[in-house]
Amino acid sequence: MLLALLILATAPSPDPARTLVGGALTDGLAHARLRELTDTIGPRLSGSPGAEAAVQWALKKFQQDGLAARLEPVKVPHWVRGPESGEILPSPSGVGHPLALTALGNGVGGNVTAEVVEARSLAEVAALGASARGKIVFFDHPMSTPDGYGKFVDLRTHGPSAAARVGAVAVLIRSLATASFRSPHTGMTSYDADAPKIPAAAVSTEDADLLHRLLQRGPVKARISLDCRMLPDADSSNVIGEVRGREKPEEVVLIGAHLDSWDLAQGANDDGAGVAMVMEAGRLIASLPQKPRRTLRVVLFMNEENGLAGGKAYAAAHREEIPRHVAALEADSGAGRPLVVRMRAGEGGVALLKPWLSALQSLEIGLEEGEAGGADLGPLGGQVPLVLVHPDGTHYFDIHHSAADTLDKIDPENLAKGAAAIAVVAWSLAEMPETLPRAPPREREKQAAPKPLAH
Amino acid sequence: MLLALLILATAPSPDPARTLVGGALTDGLAHARLRELTDTIGPRLSGSPGAEAAVQWALKKFQQDGLAARLEPVKVPHWVRGPESGEILPSPSGVGHPLALTALGNGVGGNVTAEVVEARSLAEVAALGASARGKIVFFDHPMSTPDGYGKFVDLRTHGPSAAARVGAVAVLIRSLATASFRSPHTGMTSYDADAPKIPAAAVSTEDADLLHRLLQRGPVKARISLDCRMLPDADSSNVIGEVRGREKPEEVVLIGAHLDSWDLAQGANDDGAGVAMVMEAGRLIASLPQKPRRTLRVVLFMNEENGLAGGKAYAAAHREEIPRHVAALEADSGAGRPLVVRMRAGEGGVALLKPWLSALQSLEIGLEEGEAGGADLGPLGGQVPLVLVHPDGTHYFDIHHSAADTLDKIDPENLAKGAAAIAVVAWSLAEMPETLPRAPPREREKQAAPKPLAH
Repeated sequence: MLLALLILATAPSPDPARTLVGGALTDGLAHARLRELTDTIGPRLSGSPGAEAAVQWALKKFQQDGLAARLEPVKVPHWVRGPESGEILPSPSGVGHPLALTALGNGVGGNVTAEVVEARSLAEVAALGASARGKIVFFDHPMSTPDGYGKFVDLRTHGPSAAARVGAVAVLIRSLATASFRSPHTGMTSYDADAPKIPAAAVSTEDADLLHRLLQRGPVKARISLDCRMLPDADSSNVIGEVRGREKPEEVVLIGAHLDSWDLAQGANDDGAGVAMVMEAGRLIASLPQKPRRTLRVVLFMNEENGLAGGKAYAAAHREEIPRHVAALEADSGAGRPLVVRMRAGEGGVALLKPWLSALQSLEIGLEEGEAGGADLGPLGGQVPLVLVHPDGTHYFDIHHSAADTLDKIDPENLAKGAAAIAVVAWSLAEMPETLPRAPPREREKQAAPKPLAH
Repeated sequence: MLLALLILATAPSPDPARTLVGGALTDGLAHARLRELTDTIGPRLSGSPGAEAAVQWALKKFQQDGLAARLEPVKVPHWVRGPESGEILPSPSGVGHPLALTALGNGVGGNVTAEVVEARSLAEVAALGASARGKIVFFDHPMSTPDGYGKFVDLRTHGPSAAARVGAVAVLIRSLATASFRSPHTGMTSYDADAPKIPAAAVSTEDADLLHRLLQRGPVKARISLDCRMLPDADSSNVIGEVRGREKPEEVVLIGAHLDSWDLAQGANDDGAGVAMVMEAGRLIASLPQKPRRTLRVVLFMNEENGLAGGKAYAAAHREEIPRHVAALEADSGAGRPLVVRMRAGEGGVALLKPWLSALQSLEIGLEEGEAGGADLGPLGGQVPLVLVHPDGTHYFDIHHSAADTLDKIDPENLAKGAAAIAVVAWSLAEMPETLPRAPPREREKQAAPKPLAH
């Protein structure tokens, strides 16, 4: 009897979790919100009018949802795309071809006409040496599945400087994509201080295949015109909505997503879906009859895509408070069907959280230990237990950073399930008597100033 | 013994058919040819330099392959695309959106800014009446599988005139596509004489979804700028390669494909693949030790995409000879895996041809009665037995008439199998002692001047 009472005292009440799941799956607002964000605000690149409109929109929505809402200032890079075009020039034995290309984010503009030379790695371009001088370096790679992104993203981030270092005048890179109908995929590049800044663009995988084939026939000359440029940094904001904890308000469970998107599309999947899911989780938790024990903080980060200024600003502004962050979750993996909750915490963490997630069994979402980061959580420096609702990512890179990242790609049911899972996880972490043990920080996380992760 | 002799005398020798399959699958040139056509000549819209380069290229290849080659004159429409753009204008409660669009072939240019009104059928636009006056009619439709093309292509062909008839100033149509990453699909439109010619463009399925959603919110205004125009008709050619029959040279087996393509891409699948397969079949048959009994004629038609001038010119120039065409096959369904040979002939045709196709059993390609037309064969007026090698068309409309119709979409093995199947079918029809019985012509085919099929 005593044991039973003890169990009753420490076991979670299943009702709030079930209320959250039921709310998300029935009258859930996640898809309607996402539709509003994408269709009435659209692209939200840092510094753009769309980004600022999204900030005001999110602030108002948090207030409507009954969360304590505020803005926290973030100074963001302000990069703008202009007209852009490119072509393979006619060869003596053949014709010219237009190139479907798009400038890499944060890149410089310019007009270049030069011979093309192919490289398949940063080492290969370094080895080209003087033979790359005055040329356009074309980075090709064999990405065909989602795990290729991690393998080859360095070509996009560091390729332009690596090419400039050996005298190249521009860079074309095969889009980091798992499918294509001639759509180039942008993404941030990062110039090193010791190399000239040269124009850099992604070409569609079809155009990359064509370049590769034509280079087998003989010399290839291309023209690239990019009118993009970096303006002075702009003022922007992270948007924060809170449900203050009833017992330990100073302890914080953070759930976040990034409000900015690339400029080529509505950013429905990256990261409109994440924004919609964490806002919905916040709304559902705020509407429970009893506030959770700890504070739930929903953070919509600005500038994840091309600078991580929001993630860094949050970590700086809340430095004192970070030790009281009991867990953090970022939703930035799209709106595929949620498969599993992953956590990176100290020993015993999984056993502690598991009984609280029983409401997710009907959604076939389990719990496992594993990687659970998020680009905006990197600046927290590995001091906070990380949790992730991991969705099916099979088609994530089909549309990632391209003009095809549009609302039609989002399955409303999967989005609702994702919101349900995030709500249950967040509420559990805010409500359970214990907190998750912290994972030992990794070497790279111990460094004083963690470098931004390219995303 | 007599029976056995009779069987030997009338049964096909299997060796040539096996030689053809072996040749196509081993040292076959289909893919190399297609690569040359797409990468060194590229788009081949009627009247363009690419189309003329393709004519000269094909003539030379037929000669190299040992076929008797010639050009037959065709006067073709000469439509040219110019810069094109469009956008949804900002609404009082929202932002603007760029439209991924492309002008419909043979359409007029123009600059239009007007309110958008949606219609889902030709009947619906007619019913709009005065409420469509001065507006842009947006044709939406639910095509999601290949069979939707036949159901909704009328919107593209006849929608602009139907809209103009009720006073609309421009047309946008949801691309006829089974998949999209924001890529619009063009195709021919056809103005009626009794309606003003108004600009018309296809939007990507994503943009169509967006238009549909925004129209649910309130009035939508759009701007369309198309700089396309029709120039005076141009001189062009059908390209013909022949293997003269050893016994009945006056009897003709025609295998064809169309040499022209849309201008947005290389036209690898539509119809570079068909060109490569029928040329390869011709090459393989020409290289057999013994010429077939009848004449094999490979016809590369010009202008299938936006006028059918080549098909009509062929039928007119060979009017006297049409009764001696014993069969005709057009390859214009892409390079998916060949699934089955279909024929439309009189009773007993399948039984007659079946034993000749045993070499295709190893490729799992059977024979069945069914639809076996081809747009360029329409002008033959249903007087010739039709045969078709039917490929898997699941992904045909993913890239059809779009910028994504590029070489990388072609599987070399399937292309070789298709060439093998066409070669065996064509050789069998040219070699078998009997000819296929003719199918009774259909009502519409009895008309003196058959109308071009929109394709």
